[in-house]
Amino acid sequence: MNQEHLVIIGGVAAGTKCAVKARRENPDLKITVYTDGEHVSYSACGLPYFIEGLFDNYERLLVKSIKDFKEKDNINMHVLHRAIKINPDLNSIDIKNLNTDEIFEVKYDKLLIATGARVFVPQIEGVDLKNIFTLRTVADGIAIKNQVEKSEKAVIIGAGLIGLEVAEAFKKRGLDVTVIEKENQIINQIDSEIAEQIKEYCEKQGIKFILGTSANQFSGINGRVTSVLLSNGESIDTDMVLMSIGVRPNSEIAKEAGIDVGKTGAIRVNYRMQTNISNIYAAGDCVEQINLINGEPIWVPLGSTANKQGRVAALNIVGQHAEFKGVLGSFVTRVFDFTISKTGLSEKEVKALNYDYETIITKHRDRAGYMPNAAQITIKLIAQRPSGKILGAQVIGEGDADKRVNVVATAITSKMTIDEFLDIDITYAPPYSPAIDPILKSAQAIENKLKVCKC
Amino acid sequence: MNQEHLVIIGGVAAGTKCAVKARRENPDLKITVYTDGEHVSYSACGLPYFIEGLFDNYERLLVKSIKDFKEKDNINMHVLHRAIKINPDLNSIDIKNLNTDEIFEVKYDKLLIATGARVFVPQIEGVDLKNIFTLRTVADGIAIKNQVEKSEKAVIIGAGLIGLEVAEAFKKRGLDVTVIEKENQIINQIDSEIAEQIKEYCEKQGIKFILGTSANQFSGINGRVTSVLLSNGESIDTDMVLMSIGVRPNSEIAKEAGIDVGKTGAIRVNYRMQTNISNIYAAGDCVEQINLINGEPIWVPLGSTANKQGRVAALNIVGQHAEFKGVLGSFVTRVFDFTISKTGLSEKEVKALNYDYETIITKHRDRAGYMPNAAQITIKLIAQRPSGKILGAQVIGEGDADKRVNVVATAITSKMTIDEFLDIDITYAPPYSPAIDPILKSAQAIENKLKVCKC
Repeated sequence: MNQEHLVIIGGVAAGTKCAVKARRENPDLKITVYTDGEHVSYSACGLPYFIEGLFDNYERLLVKSIKDFKEKDNINMHVLHRAIKINPDLNSIDIKNLNTDEIFEVKYDKLLIATGARVFVPQIEGVDLKNIFTLRTVADGIAIKNQVEKSEKAVIIGAGLIGLEVAEAFKKRGLDVTVIEKENQIINQIDSEIAEQIKEYCEKQGIKFILGTSANQFSGINGRVTSVLLSNGESIDTDMVLMSIGVRPNSEIAKEAGIDVGKTGAIRVNYRMQTNISNIYAAGDCVEQINLINGEPIWVPLGSTANKQGRVAALNIVGQHAEFKGVLGSFVTRVFDFTISKTGLSEKEVKALNYDYETIITKHRDRAGYMPNAAQITIKLIAQRPSGKILGAQVIGEGDADKRVNVVATAITSKMTIDEFLDIDITYAPPYSPAIDPILKSAQAIENKLKVCKC
Repeated sequence: MNQEHLVIIGGVAAGTKCAVKARRENPDLKITVYTDGEHVSYSACGLPYFIEGLFDNYERLLVKSIKDFKEKDNINMHVLHRAIKINPDLNSIDIKNLNTDEIFEVKYDKLLIATGARVFVPQIEGVDLKNIFTLRTVADGIAIKNQVEKSEKAVIIGAGLIGLEVAEAFKKRGLDVTVIEKENQIINQIDSEIAEQIKEYCEKQGIKFILGTSANQFSGINGRVTSVLLSNGESIDTDMVLMSIGVRPNSEIAKEAGIDVGKTGAIRVNYRMQTNISNIYAAGDCVEQINLINGEPIWVPLGSTANKQGRVAALNIVGQHAEFKGVLGSFVTRVFDFTISKTGLSEKEVKALNYDYETIITKHRDRAGYMPNAAQITIKLIAQRPSGKILGAQVIGEGDADKRVNVVATAITSKMTIDEFLDIDITYAPPYSPAIDPILKSAQAIENKLKVCKC
């Protein structure tokens, strides 16, 4: 009997998770991973902290070495090997060795596409100048960290989560940091009044923002960027630039092979992470998810989701049954000592869906007021009318925000109403919360508003 | 028309919460509160931190002053007034003024019993000696704090949550601390192997434990305690003693008036916090709750529950409809830098119910391993067989344990199975968790065990 061959393209989160889980469930499977990067199985989310200098050796970002994949799990990892074409009719894939430019064909019984996403870089004049970076891979992180040591000023294009994380890293490394954002608010996933609080906090830490503006042109001397010309006419001198406008799914190779790609531009899969071609699976940043609140496709590329999907794909690939139901778009990040977290829908997303809703913004101490480290958090809670079904929460502040958002994320997954939410028996002790937890206070306040008839 | 009169006996958490909420909902109600203590509306849970010296002024524990209750909320508060008899047939209550010993009768339309709980003190020889304390009221806290300043050694009888919190406070104030516990483990609510980890941690902080032993006798000089004789024959010299064996509900006054008291010894109420006498409500530490997992009565006196119940009682008292469904017995505390948290049932509680179950203990870093503050947590997760319904979690450690327990508490409230739990979209970023959160890792591990047939 021929040994069954699982081929995986992509070696970061979903790809390596699937490989390891498939191996654990089936010792007899042949497993081969091809990735076009230099490194495998790394935490891309940790790159801003590496740049900040919280640790010096980039190898700490590597979850597992190629040697360990081979020796411990009998998984063959090939770095700098790019998948260039999938041939579903032949059950094969064309791979290019980026060291030698050799192209060869590999047969698979099952294929996992885990090609991830790439940073979107608009084709502005001068964008190819040196010291204009994107941050996605370990190699990107090393290059940026090296340049930070030689720089005094940096411009970041795009005030999303990664833009802010790197802004903090640059600032802590002593750089003068300006963040440019096309929208009139930072962090587009959240509502503007919440974003405004975060912006004010970051400004107090010395980050400069220019909103409602984009980069029109980069100028340089000796091939190195020296200034950014903005659409508002302003010009900013800089020693380096980070492009963090957004990311795009690496779904082209799938699309060209006849695999369905959704409106989001990412690969469409069923709950079992299977594409429309039954022996081809996809997982991680290259696939779209289902929004658990409204059942619509959504694309929220995150390392945590990629890991979960890799596990589900592996279980189905080895013949078991597992499902990945969808996401709430939950995220958290920290900028300096400020936590930014969200789950479910923002008010603007709720409005776009034409839902009838109620919302409330409340401010709280995160623990008993007499405890020395009590700090403030702001909660924005959104619930549907008249059902009271919880739709989303944004929790931010110097206090413990993340804990509250995760409780709401769990509640939304269970389709809880505010009324039911008021019954949750979460923990209380003065070092951890006031006697009534802020998230319950917020729920009580929105409950009072929901009770008032709008008719 | 006569003004309706709400009388409340008890002025700490449930009583004051009910008073304020009832006032907010009904400006016309006459509201009078009688309490036998010196202080009202205080955070008893904060007393160990006051003793520890995290803040000096005990008034920081007072949520609201008697003056503010009167002036802002038109609520009359009478301290040092003890309710001594309820006369349901007369809709009246006999109150004793503890300053004057005068007894008078007060008419009510609605009555809330919020008499709380008291520390159980066994009648051991010498228990009335000076410097033997209990910790329940602000006055207790002040007395203990004063004695700590004059002491070098302390013995704590009872290794429950309060015993441990005060042990930390004493240790931080420089005392030599010995904790005596009748059981063979500390913190009886949790399982012994988890308790053992906590004990080892506390021992490293310099706390001494003597388990499986109780106090048989106290000896003193000049009326002050100087030593404790244990049931194992040992004698320990000490300058002070804290009795923290446990608490009992103050339900006698209710029982004598014909109000139902449950097997737990606490007052029985319906979901609306109503006793068997329709215009008499009860809330807080004097009432029993329903265990949300098995529907059985349980008595878990906690400030957070008292606050919620006070709110629900108020809404029903003013003619609205609100319900308090029950509890999971969730708790958290911190001892030094170690968090101890639990929700739902322990393994021994599950065994006592004769449930078929699966359990797993896992250890994790609480955030990405390359982050400087990553710390360890231990999770014990328990799920029912074969349904996979989550029954309980114990999460402890120097890392962020509490966040994980609250997610499980929310999931248990929704009667989630492990399978459903694996889908929750909780947040991820390196400063907050590894790519797959420890609680999901733990759930994945128990899922693997649940899949294996026991037959």
